[in-house]
Amino acid sequence: MGGPRDTDVDAGSGSENGRARSALRERLRVIIFGADTPAGKWFDVILLVTIVVSIGVVLLESVRGVRDRHGDLLLTLEWCFTALFTVEYLLRLWTVHRPARYARSFFGVVDLLAILPTYVSLLVPGSQSLIVIRAIRLLRVFRVFKLARYVGEGELLWQAMRASRQKITVFLVGVVSIVVIVGAVMYLIEGTESGFTSIPTSIYWAVVTMTTVGYGDIAPQTVPGKFIASCVMVIGYGIIAVPTGIVTAELHEAAMRARREVSTKACPACGQSGHAPDSKFCKDCGSSLTPPSEPDA
Amino acid sequence: MGGPRDTDVDAGSGSENGRARSALRERLRVIIFGADTPAGKWFDVILLVTIVVSIGVVLLESVRGVRDRHGDLLLTLEWCFTALFTVEYLLRLWTVHRPARYARSFFGVVDLLAILPTYVSLLVPGSQSLIVIRAIRLLRVFRVFKLARYVGEGELLWQAMRASRQKITVFLVGVVSIVVIVGAVMYLIEGTESGFTSIPTSIYWAVVTMTTVGYGDIAPQTVPGKFIASCVMVIGYGIIAVPTGIVTAELHEAAMRARREVSTKACPACGQSGHAPDSKFCKDCGSSLTPPSEPDA
Amino acid sequence: MGGPRDTDVDAGSGSENGRARSALRERLRVIIFGADTPAGKWFDVILLVTIVVSIGVVLLESVRGVRDRHGDLLLTLEWCFTALFTVEYLLRLWTVHRPARYARSFFGVVDLLAILPTYVSLLVPGSQSLIVIRAIRLLRVFRVFKLARYVGEGELLWQAMRASRQKITVFLVGVVSIVVIVGAVMYLIEGTESGFTSIPTSIYWAVVTMTTVGYGDIAPQTVPGKFIASCVMVIGYGIIAVPTGIVTAELHEAAMRARREVSTKACPACGQSGHAPDSKFCKDCGSSLTPPSEPDA
Amino acid sequence: MGGPRDTDVDAGSGSENGRARSALRERLRVIIFGADTPAGKWFDVILLVTIVVSIGVVLLESVRGVRDRHGDLLLTLEWCFTALFTVEYLLRLWTVHRPARYARSFFGVVDLLAILPTYVSLLVPGSQSLIVIRAIRLLRVFRVFKLARYVGEGELLWQAMRASRQKITVFLVGVVSIVVIVGAVMYLIEGTESGFTSIPTSIYWAVVTMTTVGYGDIAPQTVPGKFIASCVMVIGYGIIAVPTGIVTAELHEAAMRARREVSTKACPACGQSGHAPDSKFCKDCGSSLTPPSEPDA
Repeated sequence: MGGPRDTDVDAGSGSENGRARSALRERLRVIIFGADTPAGKWFDVILLVTIVVSIGVVLLESVRGVRDRHGDLLLTLEWCFTALFTVEYLLRLWTVHRPARYARSFFGVVDLLAILPTYVSLLVPGSQSLIVIRAIRLLRVFRVFKLARYVGEGELLWQAMRASRQKITVFLVGVVSIVVIVGAVMYLIEGTESGFTSIPTSIYWAVVTMTTVGYGDIAPQTVPGKFIASCVMVIGYGIIAVPTGIVTAELHEAAMRARREVSTKACPACGQSGHAPDSKFCKDCGSSLTPPSEPDA
Repeated sequence: MGGPRDTDVDAGSGSENGRARSALRERLRVIIFGADTPAGKWFDVILLVTIVVSIGVVLLESVRGVRDRHGDLLLTLEWCFTALFTVEYLLRLWTVHRPARYARSFFGVVDLLAILPTYVSLLVPGSQSLIVIRAIRLLRVFRVFKLARYVGEGELLWQAMRASRQKITVFLVGVVSIVVIVGAVMYLIEGTESGFTSIPTSIYWAVVTMTTVGYGDIAPQTVPGKFIASCVMVIGYGIIAVPTGIVTAELHEAAMRARREVSTKACPACGQSGHAPDSKFCKDCGSSLTPPSEPDA
Repeated sequence: MGGPRDTDVDAGSGSENGRARSALRERLRVIIFGADTPAGKWFDVILLVTIVVSIGVVLLESVRGVRDRHGDLLLTLEWCFTALFTVEYLLRLWTVHRPARYARSFFGVVDLLAILPTYVSLLVPGSQSLIVIRAIRLLRVFRVFKLARYVGEGELLWQAMRASRQKITVFLVGVVSIVVIVGAVMYLIEGTESGFTSIPTSIYWAVVTMTTVGYGDIAPQTVPGKFIASCVMVIGYGIIAVPTGIVTAELHEAAMRARREVSTKACPACGQSGHAPDSKFCKDCGSSLTPPSEPDA
Repeated sequence: MGGPRDTDVDAGSGSENGRARSALRERLRVIIFGADTPAGKWFDVILLVTIVVSIGVVLLESVRGVRDRHGDLLLTLEWCFTALFTVEYLLRLWTVHRPARYARSFFGVVDLLAILPTYVSLLVPGSQSLIVIRAIRLLRVFRVFKLARYVGEGELLWQAMRASRQKITVFLVGVVSIVVIVGAVMYLIEGTESGFTSIPTSIYWAVVTMTTVGYGDIAPQTVPGKFIASCVMVIGYGIIAVPTGIVTAELHEAAMRARREVSTKACPACGQSGHAPDSKFCKDCGSSLTPPSEPDA
């Protein structure tokens, strides 16, 4: 409702030219932000492919052999992608109803971060230390967040995660506590010969073991050390059940809530909702819930 | 209903010979496609064993020692299996009501792929490069898909998977994003000495770590690298809860849906089904659902 | 009901002596098979400790250093345990109502297997090959099954497992299929230099990777190999959700069934069961479900 | 209700001085034990930070390089933290209503253990063996338990764990049995060349494998060994579903119980609670549960 009115105000420049520009702007906005029109769909698909390929270029550039042989090609591609994303960013800024709000939103920041590093790399003199240049290049990888726009069902998952935030915090504090204590105990038992050279290193080992990753770069050598390690493994193997249980219960809950809302038909007689999805008569007053001609779907 | 009529058309060749052949075809069809008759069961068991043994032969042929010593035996066996599967394929084509449809179906293609590689290997001259011959031989392993015919309950699992397709896509996009960013960060932090020679290699390490596989061929050496690795492990350990929660909730849902359908008693008055398992009166017309003498099971 | 009558038949030897023996037998039976009397509890605790210690002796005997130093002590202990378990087995055979049935039952066979190896080791001449002696010694480890007697809640878990048997079979066939195909593909891609020397070895690697064990003894070296390995890891990481979902849904189902059964109070008026655990009035006929003096627990 | 009265008794010393001290004590008690006042919140945040930093100091002290360079600083910090925790412990003892009860409670013991090791280290002569000094230092790591005070939602998780205690015991006995038997079998098959030098070592390998940790320090070399290892991996990969299922079902149950209680509306006529969330009439006495004007929430 508010959208069209905002546009009216924008279009209020009065002149013929202004009206044409406003119409173009509106048409572009539908293409860029919407996905319902064929043009909008094409825009989305092309942008999606561009994002993936541009990330691929960043990844390939880090491979020594590829950089040495195809360095110029990668640089050219990089500038093409930056130009494309810059045009996209400017168009979004121009067509969106509230540019300031978009610029400060998650996607606005992500869209800006996707083009900034390449421009910044021009300002950094070549004499700069390698690590700075690398770090700037690295930032381009965050373009991966542009993909978030195309992920629809994330909301439900995110809600389930947020709803179980407290339980997950408890779980993490528990894991950290176990890992710190096990690390300290193993440092005492194993000594420095087996690679348990300090408590932080021992804690690293405990994390590697408890999460069942098990690199094997550090492994207990003594009998009591192996025994404690076995216990840690079984504990780690077992307590993975806890976050799983939390998220499952939460997702189940969220799904049930969603379903309940979907199946809500208010009784036309008494206004009572919460009927079973296939109910035909109100469970509270007995009035018919559905008009007689409704197909049984 | 359509089946018999199709057969009638097939049997319409009129002659005595044609009728006998049609009867044989029908009997074979029952044996080959059905599992209700003793002959059909035997056919299934023999085919099952043949598939497993023929895959075993492919596997053994790849072991150098076995190939050198028993190469001829394996080749003979291979041709026997190919002959058997060819006969099976032709019989299926002949007896099935709609051969073209079968040939294009999943199992039709699998049945064809199970015999093609051996025939193709005749056409490829021995002078061909080893990799081509190997690839053709490899294709025979896809015979494992013939086993899918004997897997009954797969439907429910498959449905649960398909129903949670969108959520799983979201999850995978999330995992890929984390893995790309972690890979880039670790490449920056660890440098090339610890094996993090390029971002793709770092991403490979991130996948190995986050899925808790943990080969240990690449492992962080610096303190910040180990710290980030620990975080990635705990994240990977924790977010496995997400697909588990999704599938569990979906399976629970599917099971409940299935049970609801199972407990269906149609109302003898209005024919409406979908009543709660312990309902005594139809929720749509109010008639009694159960005869008075029904035992309480 | 059947128990006492069986005892009557047993006690039918008539003589004073016979009756005394029968009483002793009955008392022993209560101690050995029951856990309600103090004597029965003590018997259980002592047996439990004996089993655990006897397994510990078997384990220690396999450690070279311990065997060399304390070999005689371990042998003595071993014969003590065998004597104890023999007495236990004979007493069980004597006191149980149906000895033949017990002898053929799971626990009868386990109790026999717990003592047989030690006696058999007497018959095997010392000149026998080491592997045979070792294998016989090994059998004593199966004493661990004697512990199963003390595990109460196993029934529910076992039922949930059995109920989801078919789904788990489907899952396992799926895992085996993926593993066979991935093994074959990796054998083709990686070649024999990286340790993928044959398809069976490749399949072993695929199992190690897909189950997220990740020893690291075999690891892909080529870029496509690493890419496929990453995919296998993510698949393995994801589809663990499937058995988890199956068992969770099944356990949930079993728990609900159990609860439903536990909370069953049949209506004294109409005999209808299936009321909510805290219902006070029959949901079908409205009669009171509980006598007025019942405490509200 | 009991709290104020206890304070009255404490304040019963009568003199002006005693009353002022009692008021101070009460105010401190609110700050130390409560988190509702701004001062109480600040106290909690400062304590939380102090705990985390003091654990960090213990961890850093174990790193050789850091200890050599900043040993004096760490020692000073250690004594500062000990002084702070001592003051905290004494204030808690003074302000709490029942000091003896607090001292014997979980947090009382943890608070004491957090300061004892540093004092004890003064009593131990420097000539003592390194392991004793190390062990005493190690005890300070148990300060991590002081964090438990700040973990709110732990109760629900803990209840779910305790409720599924029996099932988890069954699961652990099962895992231990499998691991012992697999360890014995692998010891027999692999022999001592592959690292399976004794049954306990084999069992350690079995734990490492079954929990999907997979260090790779011990790995099967023979074909049958690899085959059994593959089976163990698939079993370990599959039965992780069991604890997950148990905890999930239990958490779901606990959540449902909690929700049921939340939706409790007590009947205004008979005071009975535990009605279904959408009930309009008391299930026990039939009175209306809701005033007519209640909004439909």
